[in-house]
Amino acid sequence: MNAAPLTDFSRLCVHTITTKPWPLAEAVKHYAAAGVKGITVWRQALEGLDPAAAGRMIREQGLTVVSLCRGGFFTAATAAGRREAVSDNLRCIELAAAVGAPHIVLVCGAVPGQPLAESRRQIAEGIAAIAPAAAAAGVRLAIEPLHPIYAADRSAINTISQARAICRQIASPWVGLALDVYHIWWDDALEQEIAACGREKSLFAFHVCDWKLTMLDPLNDRGLMGEGCIPLRQIRGWVEAAGFAGFHEVEIFSNLYWAGDQHAFLARIQEAYLGSV
Amino acid sequence: MNAAPLTDFSRLCVHTITTKPWPLAEAVKHYAAAGVKGITVWRQALEGLDPAAAGRMIREQGLTVVSLCRGGFFTAATAAGRREAVSDNLRCIELAAAVGAPHIVLVCGAVPGQPLAESRRQIAEGIAAIAPAAAAAGVRLAIEPLHPIYAADRSAINTISQARAICRQIASPWVGLALDVYHIWWDDALEQEIAACGREKSLFAFHVCDWKLTMLDPLNDRGLMGEGCIPLRQIRGWVEAAGFAGFHEVEIFSNLYWAGDQHAFLARIQEAYLGSV
Repeated sequence: MNAAPLTDFSRLCVHTITTKPWPLAEAVKHYAAAGVKGITVWRQALEGLDPAAAGRMIREQGLTVVSLCRGGFFTAATAAGRREAVSDNLRCIELAAAVGAPHIVLVCGAVPGQPLAESRRQIAEGIAAIAPAAAAAGVRLAIEPLHPIYAADRSAINTISQARAICRQIASPWVGLALDVYHIWWDDALEQEIAACGREKSLFAFHVCDWKLTMLDPLNDRGLMGEGCIPLRQIRGWVEAAGFAGFHEVEIFSNLYWAGDQHAFLARIQEAYLGSV
Repeated sequence: MNAAPLTDFSRLCVHTITTKPWPLAEAVKHYAAAGVKGITVWRQALEGLDPAAAGRMIREQGLTVVSLCRGGFFTAATAAGRREAVSDNLRCIELAAAVGAPHIVLVCGAVPGQPLAESRRQIAEGIAAIAPAAAAAGVRLAIEPLHPIYAADRSAINTISQARAICRQIASPWVGLALDVYHIWWDDALEQEIAACGREKSLFAFHVCDWKLTMLDPLNDRGLMGEGCIPLRQIRGWVEAAGFAGFHEVEIFSNLYWAGDQHAFLARIQEAYLGSV
């Protein structure tokens, strides 16, 4: 059953990458002025800034830091590479704690040519290695299953089912999932998988955008909600039925929208949010 | 475990679409001269030809007709559209029987914006509608799961698991699967799913090509075997362990290769077949 239409922006979160041309302070100011209540901060938006001060600045504008994007990329051909990935993720956890993000999103990684089974083993090992630090810092780790189109080089975790298996293996309340409709909408078991995340208390985050029929770029041509074929309201209904009550995060990588006026884009995001999510 | 390297072309089949610039008679002549033993005929290669005569011509050159590509596209927004799809598939079965193809490959269809669950229902209904005619004609129906990247507009059947569910539902020995590495390589249950096809006697066809890391076109930039990241020899090992003893069909859609010399391309296919499949 479809969710009821949304009527306000109290649960709307925008990812800084969505309005990439805006530096963090600009994004915060404009989101706040538009009535957006949540922000997911990408690491590159924090470069050169003091993260604790950035977090205070965000909260002072009335915004909630929903998440830090992103950690992960645990796979590497060498043990040294994998150790470096763990170190980087430990720094990411510290950064999340400093900025005040309750969780970090993990894009898990894949090494072109490396067997997927080996990448999957390395990913589980990497997450297990950082889970104690995450728990100690009070930062949750949200595994984001990525669309199979990215299996070769971005993430060998391509379904909710796979991500849940890692969660069961690690068995920490600090490890769960970030569900992005772009990556999971095609899954024929989607409703049941989302319900399972609810039962397992592992549904940490919900990202929205749309899947366009004609994609000009495999990575940076995501659609605004309503521009594509994802049944957003149905999926939100399943997510809410699973007990999720967090923010709806708008994460759009788009060469097209990044090239345009960001104020106009933010207005379109808000319109699309009410009309299609 | 990887399969043993191939040492000859006795099980090599090439799809006419792979060398699209060649009309059927040219393709047959050049495949035969190169020692290729199988050919999968695309419907457009038969346009304007008498299919029975084309089948005889192929066999006289010492080639086996491995398959007819392709039927399917059962989904439509209207009942009339779905009836027309069934009619078209019945014509495809007749064509396969006339040319002497033991099976037809089904690309099942999807309607942009139509819920995937509805498309899946329509697909199962369409296949059930044509299965008796297929049995009567002695032509098998091979459902090809398509990569989730095509879920919006080409096929709502995106995993082996889904295709097997339709096979179980229809429960006809004339309905099985065509497995193309391009579509299924990312599946974390791939080995088990292939084994299940073996147990269920539903593994009808095996297609090879490769998944390139940088894709210039979402449809027509497939790689030659060895150019990408698919573990071809491992997957062939699983297919053989499942009891498959048919042809290895090279199906490559490639604007790049279509634009080049087809003799040189065929030579590269044969080299890649021995080196990478």
